[in-house]
Amino acid sequence: MGSRARIDLNADVGESFGAYAIGADAELFALVTSANVACGFHAGDPGVMDRTVGLAVRAGVAVGAHPGHLDLRGFGRRAIAAEPVEIERDVLYQVGALTAFARAHGAKLTHVKPHGALYNQAATDDAVARAVARGVARADRGLVLVGLCTTTAMRRAAEAEGLRFAGEAFADRRYHADGTLQPRHVAGSVITDPAQAAAQALRIAREGVVDVPGGATVRLCAQTLCVHGDNPSALQNARAVRRALDDAGIEVAALRV
Amino acid sequence: MGSRARIDLNADVGESFGAYAIGADAELFALVTSANVACGFHAGDPGVMDRTVGLAVRAGVAVGAHPGHLDLRGFGRRAIAAEPVEIERDVLYQVGALTAFARAHGAKLTHVKPHGALYNQAATDDAVARAVARGVARADRGLVLVGLCTTTAMRRAAEAEGLRFAGEAFADRRYHADGTLQPRHVAGSVITDPAQAAAQALRIAREGVVDVPGGATVRLCAQTLCVHGDNPSALQNARAVRRALDDAGIEVAALRV
Amino acid sequence: MGSRARIDLNADVGESFGAYAIGADAELFALVTSANVACGFHAGDPGVMDRTVGLAVRAGVAVGAHPGHLDLRGFGRRAIAAEPVEIERDVLYQVGALTAFARAHGAKLTHVKPHGALYNQAATDDAVARAVARGVARADRGLVLVGLCTTTAMRRAAEAEGLRFAGEAFADRRYHADGTLQPRHVAGSVITDPAQAAAQALRIAREGVVDVPGGATVRLCAQTLCVHGDNPSALQNARAVRRALDDAGIEVAALRV
Amino acid sequence: MGSRARIDLNADVGESFGAYAIGADAELFALVTSANVACGFHAGDPGVMDRTVGLAVRAGVAVGAHPGHLDLRGFGRRAIAAEPVEIERDVLYQVGALTAFARAHGAKLTHVKPHGALYNQAATDDAVARAVARGVARADRGLVLVGLCTTTAMRRAAEAEGLRFAGEAFADRRYHADGTLQPRHVAGSVITDPAQAAAQALRIAREGVVDVPGGATVRLCAQTLCVHGDNPSALQNARAVRRALDDAGIEVAALRV
Repeated sequence: MGSRARIDLNADVGESFGAYAIGADAELFALVTSANVACGFHAGDPGVMDRTVGLAVRAGVAVGAHPGHLDLRGFGRRAIAAEPVEIERDVLYQVGALTAFARAHGAKLTHVKPHGALYNQAATDDAVARAVARGVARADRGLVLVGLCTTTAMRRAAEAEGLRFAGEAFADRRYHADGTLQPRHVAGSVITDPAQAAAQALRIAREGVVDVPGGATVRLCAQTLCVHGDNPSALQNARAVRRALDDAGIEVAALRV
Repeated sequence: MGSRARIDLNADVGESFGAYAIGADAELFALVTSANVACGFHAGDPGVMDRTVGLAVRAGVAVGAHPGHLDLRGFGRRAIAAEPVEIERDVLYQVGALTAFARAHGAKLTHVKPHGALYNQAATDDAVARAVARGVARADRGLVLVGLCTTTAMRRAAEAEGLRFAGEAFADRRYHADGTLQPRHVAGSVITDPAQAAAQALRIAREGVVDVPGGATVRLCAQTLCVHGDNPSALQNARAVRRALDDAGIEVAALRV
Repeated sequence: MGSRARIDLNADVGESFGAYAIGADAELFALVTSANVACGFHAGDPGVMDRTVGLAVRAGVAVGAHPGHLDLRGFGRRAIAAEPVEIERDVLYQVGALTAFARAHGAKLTHVKPHGALYNQAATDDAVARAVARGVARADRGLVLVGLCTTTAMRRAAEAEGLRFAGEAFADRRYHADGTLQPRHVAGSVITDPAQAAAQALRIAREGVVDVPGGATVRLCAQTLCVHGDNPSALQNARAVRRALDDAGIEVAALRV
Repeated sequence: MGSRARIDLNADVGESFGAYAIGADAELFALVTSANVACGFHAGDPGVMDRTVGLAVRAGVAVGAHPGHLDLRGFGRRAIAAEPVEIERDVLYQVGALTAFARAHGAKLTHVKPHGALYNQAATDDAVARAVARGVARADRGLVLVGLCTTTAMRRAAEAEGLRFAGEAFADRRYHADGTLQPRHVAGSVITDPAQAAAQALRIAREGVVDVPGGATVRLCAQTLCVHGDNPSALQNARAVRRALDDAGIEVAALRV
């Protein structure tokens, strides 16, 4: 008797700032099992963090930190040539700040997933990956590090720092044959058809593969699936993905910590 | 036989930022028993915080948070009409961030002292004082709240939030007859003669009084004395104060937590 | 034959920032004759400024600067106790930056209207008003200073600095009997019924009065009327105001410069 | 009879921020003929800019803009993967802001020299160079663009945008054989001996060559020589360079505009 397939569903939330609102956090909290909360560097502010963590806790969603480059202007999407030690300390700072809000709401931080350019730099640059992992480990060795599951830098960095690693895959993004993501600006790289996003999610969760152009597949091992809510079509995708996983009898549950 | 007089000596540190250096932290760590570390809002950054906390811990100095308004440009010295709930969350955020660095260095945060305009607003505005205290209490009810001992707003706010309060007095500042501080820009408000600063420190520590213009005195009960190190004369004062307290047999020791 | 009544219709625009969108600038440009463009301190960034000025110029709308406090987090709505000389220089900086974009689009800046807390501080505090006016005058004495027409601080400051002044009134805000605005947080202070906003606009433009609670009126002399577009109901108001002025035969035209 | 050799001597100034002081601007203004004034993105603020431009004008030093990445934390020294159009607009914004201060002091901006990482990115990346040039050209086609004279990207970008270009060389930095600068973190890359800095300045100004490791020389054509003042040894270098040029009868004068 095999065990039931299981996967975490995560979303990036708390990315509003001051008078500026972005995202559909309330809707996402009804769909996902883990939330990656922005920490004030690329997005978010103490008020947004407090409200977002409160919503997540009340929805029973696991709370993680989503640290990024100090770049509100670029929403953390611009690569910055920061020294590894700067990255380590920026991560430690942001994780510490979010930890305070989690505790104030009676919750414990479960994971850390870097944001945007920091995520992409960490996926392919060992020094950046190691700096992120060190920042997380200095905050709390019990935290799970979340990173791209189709490259190896983050996994290796987690191991080197004694952290558990959770590989992430994307329901609504296209992959290259080498397992890397097609960049957002490439036409067709973002899946906008909910049925296709749901199908990709099922392939990842049940079979551990994702289809790539040319009829080939890439093998992967994802513990968590990312869905987005930053536009109406993204939210449609998220709903379709959740429904498809539920209908297929896959257990959707937060990472074990 | 009565117990020996005792007082904490504190200084604001970690106020450099990026390429900008300010203060004489290394020298101060040899003199004081408590350090109030800037948390990145009015001064400081994750790199400065990491190095400063490391220095403090190695020097055996108690580490506290020194949260301020989000105003690097004004060094936190400009009053900002923030809502109490914003202040509460800003304090929680900053205390959380510094807590992470303290833990990473194997230390525990002992106290929180607001900075600059936030300190002054909290000394006289009950809503601001309460917001600061609430932010601290949400972070950790074991933290000591440090505030001006010659007004009552901070003490009351600490009590209301179930926090211990430590009243602060200044060795190198002149007071009004009502116990408030003369503003910095008033000529003579800052004591630049080390002998006078040392004498005022002794009066505060031994007799619980401070002399005010006109020959009168103000009674006060200070658990901690602030010294500065942001210019050569301030550092001279700090040295003279420490020597005078030691010579008088007063125990200079961190707040009990 | 008397001259035809005439008034300028202005709106605050260009308040998006980075990935964050706010406002309905494109719709407003079809309705107003003057645009107050945020300059990057309380809102806006160089990309937003470039696009906004381009849109305004193509729509034939007069371009003015809308400088605010350096407070993106608070959207410029929090009073900051800045020194007058700081305010003067902040205004000069922001006006200079926007001037460059106007020139790059072949236009000339026509006016300056301070934003939010800076506007309110300048309406009642002579030192702040004077600092704003001095910053504008140092940039270009040909610029028109726009400020609240029911208090006197801004008008006096403009005169003292040799600037033309244009008094502003609001179609969608309620006034106190002393001519000051009811604060936004007071229930009923913002007019949400387009018919009422249009009626108030007509009273201001044709009769130089605004109704206040208790059946009284306040006399005022407004050269420009502000409308908002930051929510669907505000945009409805703006449309109703423009239609009412047009239907009444009032000339809606930019300030003469 | 040949004309007398001539070169401009420039320095980066106005890099203090708020309460943070950096540099020795007053001393440098007695030595140089052109000043590159920070514009608030990587360093500087409106108060610093106002005071710095005032000092430069009174000293008879030509005023130029020194725009950088929006990165106060990294002092503009970290490469940021900004889109060319962002860079263009950031440059236009900063040049516009500084232009206002120059005018307020009765001066005209003469040149623009990008700072730090932006300078280095522009020296080798045509898209960045072109974006910088376009930002300058949109501000004022009469401005001179200053850039590294031993690579070609900036020169080509200036030509493409119809700007005059002034090639820059460094008295106190070591070059590679291909004409690029040795990075600052390489031991020996910064010349700290005033006599050596003066000798390199003379070689550049009189012979159009700079010595590189291994006994070879690189030919270059510099219209302007950069000296630094950010530490006591740098200021010693600057003094030695100026004296050597004067003693050799080389005319030290601002760029012709």
